Amino acid sequence: MVGMKMRNRQKIIALIFTAIFSCARMSLGATGDEELLEQVKQIFAPLPQAMVSEKNPITPEKVKLGKILFYETRISVDGTVSCARCHPIGLYAADGLKKSIGNNCRINPRNAPTLLNTAGQISAHWIGNRVDVEDQARQSVTGPPSFGMPSNEAVEAKLRGIPGYTELFKMAFPGESSPITVDNLAKAVGAFERTLVTPSRFDSYLKGNPTALKEQEKRGLKLYMDADCATCHSSTYVGGQMYQKFGFLEPYWKFTKSDPIDEGRYVVTKNEADKYVFKVPILRNVAKTAPYFHDGSVDKLEEAVWIMGKTQLNRELTKGEIEEIVAFLKSLTGTIPEESLTIPLLPSTE
Amino acid sequence: MVGMKMRNRQKIIALIFTAIFSCARMSLGATGDEELLEQVKQIFAPLPQAMVSEKNPITPEKVKLGKILFYETRISVDGTVSCARCHPIGLYAADGLKKSIGNNCRINPRNAPTLLNTAGQISAHWIGNRVDVEDQARQSVTGPPSFGMPSNEAVEAKLRGIPGYTELFKMAFPGESSPITVDNLAKAVGAFERTLVTPSRFDSYLKGNPTALKEQEKRGLKLYMDADCATCHSSTYVGGQMYQKFGFLEPYWKFTKSDPIDEGRYVVTKNEADKYVFKVPILRNVAKTAPYFHDGSVDKLEEAVWIMGKTQLNRELTKGEIEEIVAFLKSLTGTIPEESLTIPLLPSTE
Repeated sequence: MVGMKMRNRQKIIALIFTAIFSCARMSLGATGDEELLEQVKQIFAPLPQAMVSEKNPITPEKVKLGKILFYETRISVDGTVSCARCHPIGLYAADGLKKSIGNNCRINPRNAPTLLNTAGQISAHWIGNRVDVEDQARQSVTGPPSFGMPSNEAVEAKLRGIPGYTELFKMAFPGESSPITVDNLAKAVGAFERTLVTPSRFDSYLKGNPTALKEQEKRGLKLYMDADCATCHSSTYVGGQMYQKFGFLEPYWKFTKSDPIDEGRYVVTKNEADKYVFKVPILRNVAKTAPYFHDGSVDKLEEAVWIMGKTQLNRELTKGEIEEIVAFLKSLTGTIPEESLTIPLLPSTE
Repeated sequence: MVGMKMRNRQKIIALIFTAIFSCARMSLGATGDEELLEQVKQIFAPLPQAMVSEKNPITPEKVKLGKILFYETRISVDGTVSCARCHPIGLYAADGLKKSIGNNCRINPRNAPTLLNTAGQISAHWIGNRVDVEDQARQSVTGPPSFGMPSNEAVEAKLRGIPGYTELFKMAFPGESSPITVDNLAKAVGAFERTLVTPSRFDSYLKGNPTALKEQEKRGLKLYMDADCATCHSSTYVGGQMYQKFGFLEPYWKFTKSDPIDEGRYVVTKNEADKYVFKVPILRNVAKTAPYFHDGSVDKLEEAVWIMGKTQLNRELTKGEIEEIVAFLKSLTGTIPEESLTIPLLPSTE
């Protein structure tokens, strides 16, 4: 009896503590703020100044050339495709299409993800069939639905036909006797892309400024973690670090209405376990890069969040919860570096 | 006999004078320089700061909106066409293609001329079937080979579907109750284009600095005038002020190898006299905007100059003469205004 009384008393005390604690967390007062920030720091990290690579050190000369090549249409088979066509910087380096349209109106198999903050991922492309941003650039020039050129040699011939490139490649790759190669094109474009880092208010927050996020955004962030979104979409880029099955609990196409159904990484590996597996996309600037998913089948971020709840988390997120998560996601919209918002003059054919 | 002697003496004096005068002109010394500059000033004029229009006054708000719309692909029928697609600023606002490729791979009937310095012409488009730059922008959104939208209303619906445009149009067209219209889109894009003025060394020369042009360029300029190039390609924009038959002396397609043969302004007017008549293109930045002529059928500026000699001037220009004229033409390459070399962020669909 005494024991029961004691347990009840303990229970009541615990309940009171929990209630006080929850209130504090709900209002995200000073203590809640600090606690949240500590928790967040375990899961996320602020963006670096640039996404460096030992294999392809960033130099001003490479970045200069890479930025020019980023806008170069004359090395595509029909003269209309550049990196910027599917990744226009003014649209946060995505094109707003469900699936990008390349040379001769060829439709790419998947949605063009943003190129901002992407060089730090485990791989490039939705199904991870590009090692890194350099590999992506390298393969795109001969990719049938992108630049569509018949061979690397044909690309190099086009580059050599534009006199200004001789000096630009020489400067970017000093000491090389014949620097105009697709490999070097890829390195230059990659170096440029490695500078495309867009710090946001979330980074200020991660660096210890608790007021950088508004209350609603913090509630959204907390919910985002509580609902296990951060199990996959975490770390510096808020994603991009692993592969996961899309439709963990139920087939994704029941919600996205995708047609055709994309088998994901299975297309590359032919491993049954990779069916419907995709690289977890980064969520940096996600509010600016509709439409969503590998096939751009969903237009609204709110709907995409709801689908994630259904297919990955066994959770029917309410309208209010979605609103808060989206508020947090919008805080990931960053500032595009000024140097990448200027248009380079391309060398002429004269 | 005395009369003959007198005439001979006069002839000799005249010859001596001519010889001295020619020498002076050949070396383009101080006197020749001044004389040339005076002659040049009768024919050409320096670029204005902006190409103003009473019908569409330039305001910062209109220019801001117009520049954003210039990059807007989401108002085209397949989501791939913006003004910048066929007029990329980094390529001197031309696309380097023989004929531009628009939505759904539709090929435009003629080569995309540069948009730099173009708002001061008598009309827009090669055959003058657009009144001005505003009319060009207005018609392009529903033009089958350009944006390809089914109606102005469809364009306006797309614009209204992107929330950020509400405020931008309101700011650019204050006092209007429903400012999101294709007419206003055209005015905004037009206002932006009216700022695309690229002063070059030729303008410094015209403003009285005889050393702004190199000796070879001055010889080229003199030859350009002596050979009557300036009969048509003159004034502020070095062209763009009249219509002329291409193939004045011989059919143009004998030299350009054009296929199909374009009947020019006749297509619009159905007037027999307008057969093979085109607007005389401006030559500002001509060295940067290959390929040449209404169908982009000629790749090299040297060849284009030679063809002009043959078809318009009854003159077989020598290699040396062409070199000098081309040297002058290269001095027309100007400086693109800095403000138009920055990429605007487009409003998102969120």
